[in-house]
Amino acid sequence: MTVITPTKILLDESELPTQWYNIVPDLPAPPPPPLHPVTRAPLGPDDLAALFPPALIEQEVTAARYVDIPGEVLDVYRLWRPSPLIRAYRLERSLDTPARIYYKYEGGSPAGSHKPNTAVPQAFYNAKAGIRRLTTETGAGQWGTALAFACAQYDMGCEVWQVRASYDQKPYRRMMIEAFGGTIHPSPSTLTAAGRAILATHPDSTGSLGIAISEAVEVAAASADTNYALGSVLNHVLLHQTVIGEEALAQLAKVGETPDLIVGCAGGGSNLGGLILPFLREKLAGRQSPTLLAVEPTSCPSLTRGVYAYDYGDTAGMTPLVKMRTLGHDFIPDPIHAGGLRYHGMSPLLSHIHELGLMEARAIGQRACFAAGVRFARTEGILPAPEPTHALAVAIEEALRCKESGEQKVILVGLSGHGHLDLSSYDAYLSGAMGDHSLDEAQLRATVAALPAVPA
Amino acid sequence: MTVITPTKILLDESELPTQWYNIVPDLPAPPPPPLHPVTRAPLGPDDLAALFPPALIEQEVTAARYVDIPGEVLDVYRLWRPSPLIRAYRLERSLDTPARIYYKYEGGSPAGSHKPNTAVPQAFYNAKAGIRRLTTETGAGQWGTALAFACAQYDMGCEVWQVRASYDQKPYRRMMIEAFGGTIHPSPSTLTAAGRAILATHPDSTGSLGIAISEAVEVAAASADTNYALGSVLNHVLLHQTVIGEEALAQLAKVGETPDLIVGCAGGGSNLGGLILPFLREKLAGRQSPTLLAVEPTSCPSLTRGVYAYDYGDTAGMTPLVKMRTLGHDFIPDPIHAGGLRYHGMSPLLSHIHELGLMEARAIGQRACFAAGVRFARTEGILPAPEPTHALAVAIEEALRCKESGEQKVILVGLSGHGHLDLSSYDAYLSGAMGDHSLDEAQLRATVAALPAVPA
Repeated sequence: MTVITPTKILLDESELPTQWYNIVPDLPAPPPPPLHPVTRAPLGPDDLAALFPPALIEQEVTAARYVDIPGEVLDVYRLWRPSPLIRAYRLERSLDTPARIYYKYEGGSPAGSHKPNTAVPQAFYNAKAGIRRLTTETGAGQWGTALAFACAQYDMGCEVWQVRASYDQKPYRRMMIEAFGGTIHPSPSTLTAAGRAILATHPDSTGSLGIAISEAVEVAAASADTNYALGSVLNHVLLHQTVIGEEALAQLAKVGETPDLIVGCAGGGSNLGGLILPFLREKLAGRQSPTLLAVEPTSCPSLTRGVYAYDYGDTAGMTPLVKMRTLGHDFIPDPIHAGGLRYHGMSPLLSHIHELGLMEARAIGQRACFAAGVRFARTEGILPAPEPTHALAVAIEEALRCKESGEQKVILVGLSGHGHLDLSSYDAYLSGAMGDHSLDEAQLRATVAALPAVPA
Repeated sequence: MTVITPTKILLDESELPTQWYNIVPDLPAPPPPPLHPVTRAPLGPDDLAALFPPALIEQEVTAARYVDIPGEVLDVYRLWRPSPLIRAYRLERSLDTPARIYYKYEGGSPAGSHKPNTAVPQAFYNAKAGIRRLTTETGAGQWGTALAFACAQYDMGCEVWQVRASYDQKPYRRMMIEAFGGTIHPSPSTLTAAGRAILATHPDSTGSLGIAISEAVEVAAASADTNYALGSVLNHVLLHQTVIGEEALAQLAKVGETPDLIVGCAGGGSNLGGLILPFLREKLAGRQSPTLLAVEPTSCPSLTRGVYAYDYGDTAGMTPLVKMRTLGHDFIPDPIHAGGLRYHGMSPLLSHIHELGLMEARAIGQRACFAAGVRFARTEGILPAPEPTHALAVAIEEALRCKESGEQKVILVGLSGHGHLDLSSYDAYLSGAMGDHSLDEAQLRATVAALPAVPA
């Protein structure tokens, strides 16, 4: 049977989800609790109060299946949501596959990625709690852009510490953060004790995400009207991102489709979690049976080569200990172009779901990803960010497998953002200058051996 | 009465226009004919046959009110069309205006602007005529990007000559053209006689749009399987762009609105024409009565300071003579950031409409435009290209005037593209390094005095 669907499956604004979905109460077992970094006892809500407002701490640990999205957040979501689900007809034709490929596109947001889905509510709840300024770190700059935009909606200040290497090499992200009204500092900076300590010993330091986190957290902790915001990994971040999956579910239902395979890229896990968690609810309830697949870079493969253990979220070991798939908090991956996937760990919630056997994972090399990105751009007209090319590459592999087998699989891809500010990466690929990066096995052995010990 | 409209007014794919609209037969007088550059007699269709396929030559001169859009073009349009019409609620609130502001957003296209609306049909008709390669020139790079994408849809080669100054200073556009499969050369190049002639006398030439046109035309004219494509100015280009206005008309009707003011930026005129021509049809038929307003830079004001006269479309004087508002084909405007508005002339069709008193025009300085762009980004979440900030600046002025008068005007703005690849311009503005440019009056006197003489 040939299914005829429109190219773009759109939802009306009246169909915008009004609740976020929390998978935790629907799982067969709860995820292990986070531990205090010093006492190593389970973390209490008070331990997070210096950095986060009460509403977000509540969402981090809630047992409720659904959380209402405030009207003030929906008003901002409406600028770009519901986001389109698109049938990749032209890609399918170029592959000559019987598979039907759909992609959920988050690149139409103000930051050009899924990040504003959580930046906006985080800014809103902080503003409501009387906070006047948010600090954060950013690597490539996607998260900093999203938070700067979100803070502008609620008349809050936004201060971003960006890893100096990115700050110097990719100035367009800095400019976009400033255009949205954010303030940006290269990290390490002289504005914090953490930054000054690094600069005292390494005056030419090009920074790291771990240092930038330390600077942003230090400033937030020292000031009563300032909080810190994190763009991935945590439960409340994945919660906010479930608008992606809820919409995709409704959009596929509109055209009478149920997915056989859902594939997304996974760095900290917020894009993937946002896409798959509503579908996992359907799967656990026996209403759908998609394979859920995380794709990560071969050079930073927390799900496929990491261990499931308690570890710090940051390099410096200042955050709570969370049980997750990790390469070890000291692990420094090769500088691949998909900066958003260069994280040593994986969302504890997704790690737990993976451990329960409810989600699969695969690793893929950088050049195969960019080949998929170019193919996608030329057929579908969207130049994808380097991160979601990981999902596209696997979707294309699967579609070609369908061509061999004749299967008419329905494949849903998370296309988390556009690559307009990543064109230099495409240039490196097209000019033949891009290498593949393999896993640094020796480093991995060392960083896994150095994982912190926790009470049984 | 308060009108409640959704933030985004979307059309279904079934509501995508299936015909382009040609205003010519509805005008009270026909536009003056183009003249042969050598004989200065009215141009015949054969005079264009070396550069354009029969279907486009026919569309250039057609007396039909509507032209069917081929199914193969609609299939590509569906990747991003119908484009959204968006109610600028958050901008209105920041201005505290009773005006209702809507913007028609073309930035979701593969090139990030309105240009693919004509690039796609131009590539299609050329492919259908057996042409295997298109050549073109590009300044900032928007048009080259659109044509590279369009050629990829019909398996044609695309060769772009880009003004060397832009090629060197704004490498992201080159990279995007290459990602879509196009070939790009800095102009002047050693590949053409025209380029070699320039390089022989000016080895360090940074090029000009006029030289790039000469190179692209030379290559197209010399090869039977190669044609040339132009991204603005001509009648068939404006014809293709009318999908913008047809959609906006349907979208406003959906929410029961009729516009009092329609404002767009005008360089060669294709974006503005595409937006306003369907509304002008309604106005001429007495069904609507919007003011139609073109906005141009003070430093390149063809409509507000140019003369209405026969002139060449290019700097070198190789093209047909067309009657248009012009600053003189030798006029070189200051290097403002809105590269798409740095053209000495104006679409002959729009110039004629202006002459008939059916369209108004206003000029505005660069800094006011970027101020509007930043305000728009922070409220609406879209960073506009420098060109449409001209329209936004005037819309904001008008909305503030409504605040004084209490008028509830309905303002429709053409938001022709995003500014993701123009961030360095925003950086110059935000850092205070951007100047305003005024009109070079002495140059204008000289270039107008040098206009070609034509038979009465």
